[in-house]
Amino acid sequence: MSKVITPQEQDYSQWYNDLIIRSGLADYSAVRGCMVIKPYGYALWENMRDALDKMFKDTGHVNAYFPLFVPKSLFEAEEKNAEGFAKECAVVTHYRLKADPEKPGKLMVDPEARLEEELVVRPTSEAIIWNTYKNWIQSYRDLPILVNQWANVVRWEMRTRLFLRTAEFLWQEGHTAHATEAEARAEASQMLEVYARFAENFMAMPVVKGVKTENERFAGAVDTLCIEALMQDGKALQAGTSHFLGQNFAKAFDVKFSDKENKLDYVWATSWGVSTRLIGALVMSHSDNSGLVLPPKLAPLQVVIVPIFKGDEQLAAISDKVKPIIQQLKDLGISVKFDDNDNERPGWKFAEYELKGVPVRMAIGARDMANNVCEIARRDTKEKMTVSLDGISFYIKTLLDEIQLHLYEKARQYREAHTTEVNNWDEFVKTLDEKAGFVSAHWDGSGETEEKIKELTKATIRCIPFGQPAEQGACILTGKPSQQRVLFARAY
Amino acid sequence: MSKVITPQEQDYSQWYNDLIIRSGLADYSAVRGCMVIKPYGYALWENMRDALDKMFKDTGHVNAYFPLFVPKSLFEAEEKNAEGFAKECAVVTHYRLKADPEKPGKLMVDPEARLEEELVVRPTSEAIIWNTYKNWIQSYRDLPILVNQWANVVRWEMRTRLFLRTAEFLWQEGHTAHATEAEARAEASQMLEVYARFAENFMAMPVVKGVKTENERFAGAVDTLCIEALMQDGKALQAGTSHFLGQNFAKAFDVKFSDKENKLDYVWATSWGVSTRLIGALVMSHSDNSGLVLPPKLAPLQVVIVPIFKGDEQLAAISDKVKPIIQQLKDLGISVKFDDNDNERPGWKFAEYELKGVPVRMAIGARDMANNVCEIARRDTKEKMTVSLDGISFYIKTLLDEIQLHLYEKARQYREAHTTEVNNWDEFVKTLDEKAGFVSAHWDGSGETEEKIKELTKATIRCIPFGQPAEQGACILTGKPSQQRVLFARAY
Repeated sequence: MSKVITPQEQDYSQWYNDLIIRSGLADYSAVRGCMVIKPYGYALWENMRDALDKMFKDTGHVNAYFPLFVPKSLFEAEEKNAEGFAKECAVVTHYRLKADPEKPGKLMVDPEARLEEELVVRPTSEAIIWNTYKNWIQSYRDLPILVNQWANVVRWEMRTRLFLRTAEFLWQEGHTAHATEAEARAEASQMLEVYARFAENFMAMPVVKGVKTENERFAGAVDTLCIEALMQDGKALQAGTSHFLGQNFAKAFDVKFSDKENKLDYVWATSWGVSTRLIGALVMSHSDNSGLVLPPKLAPLQVVIVPIFKGDEQLAAISDKVKPIIQQLKDLGISVKFDDNDNERPGWKFAEYELKGVPVRMAIGARDMANNVCEIARRDTKEKMTVSLDGISFYIKTLLDEIQLHLYEKARQYREAHTTEVNNWDEFVKTLDEKAGFVSAHWDGSGETEEKIKELTKATIRCIPFGQPAEQGACILTGKPSQQRVLFARAY
Repeated sequence: MSKVITPQEQDYSQWYNDLIIRSGLADYSAVRGCMVIKPYGYALWENMRDALDKMFKDTGHVNAYFPLFVPKSLFEAEEKNAEGFAKECAVVTHYRLKADPEKPGKLMVDPEARLEEELVVRPTSEAIIWNTYKNWIQSYRDLPILVNQWANVVRWEMRTRLFLRTAEFLWQEGHTAHATEAEARAEASQMLEVYARFAENFMAMPVVKGVKTENERFAGAVDTLCIEALMQDGKALQAGTSHFLGQNFAKAFDVKFSDKENKLDYVWATSWGVSTRLIGALVMSHSDNSGLVLPPKLAPLQVVIVPIFKGDEQLAAISDKVKPIIQQLKDLGISVKFDDNDNERPGWKFAEYELKGVPVRMAIGARDMANNVCEIARRDTKEKMTVSLDGISFYIKTLLDEIQLHLYEKARQYREAHTTEVNNWDEFVKTLDEKAGFVSAHWDGSGETEEKIKELTKATIRCIPFGQPAEQGACILTGKPSQQRVLFARAY
């Protein structure tokens, strides 16, 4: 374990790894590409999950659970989807181990326990779910189906990064079925809005909403909508996707319904997901060289109170004073910890809670008590203020709201300052190399050009943003005519 | 899908399968031995999970997440554990599929993508977790570790039953690490108490607490504590286990800590778990030939209001009357649905909500409105009562509490009536065959006798109950001396 966090300026990537490990969000594991989500990281995920789950239920969705395994014959049914994921599938081929006759105490795969049909560990669940929906859907009365699943999935990635890209990750995947194209498209749009609201209101992370180019589309989708965020190093990160799947899966699994006129048609589909990757996005949106900076709405611990004392008598007096404040904070729905641990000095504790990203720290000593004040430190700006104890709980509640807004505003300003319109190739390359961030540029609309730009610069088209004004222009690479700008960036 | 539920008296096992499918708790899947947990079943699981999770957190535990896969070399480290699970392991051997050159559009396992070391899909997580704890534990200051995980696990069972025994299931597994044997034993006991409280207070399912015999112990445990419940057909069901693991896993993974005197010792461990199997137990504890009977504390929907109306005007009048009642119920924390669907008749709705096990049904028509009353039907006893609308929400709240208690009391009486003390072999066999239930009998304490009894009668020792008076006796099979009775039953 690294004892010191590498500064961002020195090596952003190393800073990220150090911080994840040091702050106790996650740990490496003995399984290639898989990580352990430690209790502090999991508490953060629980808060994200609970907020998202409520938003899903408020928009009429219910949760269900489908098998981890997908038989190969189902997996390959939707060809594009299968082709897209085939290269990164963990495959179960046997169902038993046995004692290894040549190595006492060791086990071996039992060759007699080979499966007749191999099972793919789900990289995504469209196949197994649409094979199930076939049995649930006969008539328009059975529609819509608005189901979400919280689950683990496995994609065998060659290069992995904690939270950002791991072989196994946790996510949610919504899978909906509809009677009309319009309804399915509206669902895909609605869920993108839900993701955008979650990113902005809970994660304090501004996002661009848009649609992916064909090259970047989800395998098996007709359209992939996405939210894209900008990290502090100027690289983009895809934070959530919502797919309009058309009738592709309905056709692959022969899922038809009879409409009100008793006419048979294939069912329309969407799927949408966000994952533990969002934790990586959260870290890279706000944190600094001292540690995590967490938005109050998601922080596992919102307020820590550190007593500054000598001896039991002073501690007892401070505890008495603080007890009703703790209760008031709890009554306001604020999570709070009183750290009266005698083994560590206040300075050590201050550094530790900074590392953990606790939004508000309150310190109180004997002299403060005499003056009826305390010291409040906010994690985001590191400002310290001496504040009266009268009405302190409401002060803190307001401060938490202010921190939440400030984090969003700071990230929004960063993104605004790092979104650049360019009109030719030189500007494009220079901006990517010297300034980074989102680069808004004209593109001729062809997949080949997109691929060529990626080869030359490592920049990809993050999305074609929604609500952009039409604008005539010339492609930065080919000079061919273009009707609108798209958003390029180097990305995670 | 079976349209009719087979009566319990005719075939209890078929009744169970029919009910699970018909009530929408779960569905079969395309994957051998795996099921789909449908939205209604998952909502029930969410309520169980949330109640348990709160009890875990109230006793100082935190959640974390460990990898799905266990490398074979780790899996085999604790020999007894490995031996116990080796025969039911799904094994990942490859990490890629490729186009099958002989079958266009089909995929095949890529032989070049064979893993150097096979990965076992976790049947339980002691191995991967203790291999991780090794890095987290150096000193007594790092202890205790009180971690729980909500996860899916896979055990390749040959004969599967919906919820009761499936290849993949959802569960929680607590894994704790302690500095002393006493502390670890106390933890194992505490968690058994948590399970017993959950079973009795939430599931309304009385349980016997006790310890397993050596034959029935968890593979790798020193002691397995358990709660055992009795189903309506007189068969027992193991509802939860809590294991004192001694230093077995610490030794297998070399996990030592330095105590206050700087002396090195192996860490002491527990693990404990309950699973979606509890849903099967819940169904078989209370439900009847009309459908599910769910305890109010876990029911996804507690109250349904069915309007009896002709035409929009009557419906509007009933809606107006009912609206404030719905709000009052919600304010009391009660989940309620007003089913004003015009496509189905009240009689159909009554049957449907009976099938779903909604604890309280309120029906209200024009004549009821005139008399300021409604009809209340309770699901457990099927009693119907005409009740004044004044104070109806408090009446319902009290009724829900009463139903919860009544379900528990009914199940407790059934168990009491079906727990029989026997003193010789003939009585033992006759009781098992003619009355079923728990049979309390003397046993000579040997594994061979236990095995022989199982062969002869299919009855197993469910547990050696806690708090039993010492009593001299003779083993029902061998006549050898015995110091206490144990609890036998045929079991799920």
